[in-house]
Amino acid sequence: MKKKRISILGSTGSIGVNTLNVIREFPDLFEVIGLSAGTNFELLRDQIKEFNPKIAAISSSSNVEILQDSISPRTTKLISGEKGLVEVAIHPDVDIVVSAVVGSVGLKPLIESIDNGKNIALANKESMVMAGELIQEKSREKGVMILPVDSEHNAIFQCLRGKASEDIEKIILTASGGPFRNLPLENMDSIKPQDALKHPTWDMGAKITTDSATLMNKGLELIEAKWFFDVDRRKLDVVIHPESIIHSMVQFKNRSTIAQMGLPDMKHPISYALAYPDTLESNLPALNLPDIGSLSFFEPDYEKFPCLSIAFDALDFDNSFAITLNAANEVAVQLFLEEKISFSMIPGLIKKVLDKCDIKKIRDVDEIIEFDLLVRDRTMKLNEIKAFQT
Amino acid sequence: MKKKRISILGSTGSIGVNTLNVIREFPDLFEVIGLSAGTNFELLRDQIKEFNPKIAAISSSSNVEILQDSISPRTTKLISGEKGLVEVAIHPDVDIVVSAVVGSVGLKPLIESIDNGKNIALANKESMVMAGELIQEKSREKGVMILPVDSEHNAIFQCLRGKASEDIEKIILTASGGPFRNLPLENMDSIKPQDALKHPTWDMGAKITTDSATLMNKGLELIEAKWFFDVDRRKLDVVIHPESIIHSMVQFKNRSTIAQMGLPDMKHPISYALAYPDTLESNLPALNLPDIGSLSFFEPDYEKFPCLSIAFDALDFDNSFAITLNAANEVAVQLFLEEKISFSMIPGLIKKVLDKCDIKKIRDVDEIIEFDLLVRDRTMKLNEIKAFQT
Repeated sequence: MKKKRISILGSTGSIGVNTLNVIREFPDLFEVIGLSAGTNFELLRDQIKEFNPKIAAISSSSNVEILQDSISPRTTKLISGEKGLVEVAIHPDVDIVVSAVVGSVGLKPLIESIDNGKNIALANKESMVMAGELIQEKSREKGVMILPVDSEHNAIFQCLRGKASEDIEKIILTASGGPFRNLPLENMDSIKPQDALKHPTWDMGAKITTDSATLMNKGLELIEAKWFFDVDRRKLDVVIHPESIIHSMVQFKNRSTIAQMGLPDMKHPISYALAYPDTLESNLPALNLPDIGSLSFFEPDYEKFPCLSIAFDALDFDNSFAITLNAANEVAVQLFLEEKISFSMIPGLIKKVLDKCDIKKIRDVDEIIEFDLLVRDRTMKLNEIKAFQT
Repeated sequence: MKKKRISILGSTGSIGVNTLNVIREFPDLFEVIGLSAGTNFELLRDQIKEFNPKIAAISSSSNVEILQDSISPRTTKLISGEKGLVEVAIHPDVDIVVSAVVGSVGLKPLIESIDNGKNIALANKESMVMAGELIQEKSREKGVMILPVDSEHNAIFQCLRGKASEDIEKIILTASGGPFRNLPLENMDSIKPQDALKHPTWDMGAKITTDSATLMNKGLELIEAKWFFDVDRRKLDVVIHPESIIHSMVQFKNRSTIAQMGLPDMKHPISYALAYPDTLESNLPALNLPDIGSLSFFEPDYEKFPCLSIAFDALDFDNSFAITLNAANEVAVQLFLEEKISFSMIPGLIKKVLDKCDIKKIRDVDEIIEFDLLVRDRTMKLNEIKAFQT
């Protein structure tokens, strides 16, 4: 395998850190060209010192000034702001962009990466939710590969390898069910942020962990899967699988189901996406099913987790619906984490915003971003006037 | 898909009947050219009347005479004896030979089929056990495909599709564990044939059902897998999985495990093998894991099921060992079914025969068959003198 040169958008988050773990393990195969972070400038500084990227970006310019004191400008160019994220992505030396930022902020740099012919390892599911059709059109046009890093989509990608897409009968996303799978419905409203932030399987950031607790994360993954694998609602399903050993599966029209399994570790899908189409020899622990004992499966409880139903609805509509769902969710989760709304009010607020959604196809990336901002603003206002609590 | 023309060796057994079910379902895709049966001439007669094959064979010549009264010689040529099996296989109109006979009787017609350039759907595992190396050499030489019909090997074949064989870390065969999985070790000796013939998952003939009860069936499948997938002992494993939903799996060196699943129905692997590389739309019931609830996994109990250990040993040795194991097993199972030896004496007798086995590579098919007969004779004699019971 020719050495691959990599930029990471969101290098200090969970996926970013694990990506660097993979790169550290295979220094002959991968090289870091660019790093970018939001606010964690201390970890970014350590990463820059270790990997000597050609370019690094951090959100605020005051952090750039702090970093400049300890980083040599001859090896690493430092920049700030949203422009920085794009510059890290489209650096001419980059082969693969790992998009590991959380939320809609990932869309613009993703589109620019594709326009500049970079292959993508995509963990930023919100981009696909907001602009899946546009992303796939552009990637075909530019001949770039978009490889899924989410463990579910990576599993599906592996299950589909070597198979014809017209043979797919159903793509089945597995979900751990989150920390409240067994909580009675009547107790859902008293969930506090500290309860929601305990995920049974994965150690992730606060936004995605909350999404896992509401099952909106699985909802966003459904919409992501629609665009990744070009399937409609009839071909998508969710199964609760608390052990998180089967990462997802595909049922084919010959009634054969292919599942991808492994011990949960994000280094697997990351290294799969980075090495593709090659296969790396891994030192991750091997799965031994008798050690696990048993794998269990349940239908999702749509009453307890209305976010999942809302996301299924998004599969039928043009992308303004999904953009609205995603933006309203980001705001609602933030309000919940700030203890301004209750856990059960997250889906309530999203639904109220969606009720007023003008359903249309938005094809231009700047218009998508503008619409996203509009929805956020509307969500905040709706919350302030408490109109949605009726 | 161009219409495929099929001969079935063993058309009245479980695999044969299911093969005809598949063909009946897709009359535009498959055509029966030849049928052959052992003793069930009544079912064979019905099959001949329904499918109008060009050729049909039955073991004994007296049965041919009975059949001749009700079958038109203008549509179907009737023959008898072992020669009949070969003639059905190599008929010039045949594209695919489904080898569904049980035991070593399948070897000669299989080799002749390959020599005549026929593609093979192989359910007769004993052929692969006795002469795997020879079969694979000949199939490469003649450019014929040998597709596995055993649900485990078919599952592995599906898991491997699109993947490089050097990326395999381990092939894991699943086993239901048979009817005596939970029986205490001390009760194993009192098992009667009628107990052994109750298989938890599959409805099959007496020999293979007994093999499933001793786990020798899984042992034969291990040896079969060695030759089907060109792997050695270090890359083969068995896991007990009583629900029989995961039909087998492959762990790759990147520590990703791919599993093939489905509700147990032999029509699936049969239609997969017949249609390959195309995929047929199936009307089999779809797997819905929440309906199943949970899947469980255990290490095999090698003390209770010594046949499985014996088969693992065969992976390390030249084929005279596997031929001996297979022949001694066929005789021992027959003796058990005739209530001449106890259930626990099946592995005991096989071991005694193997103790005297001259380990060598036998490459000629006639020598393999001769050696097989010699072992059967030796096994019978050993049993008669009760020498093995010491």
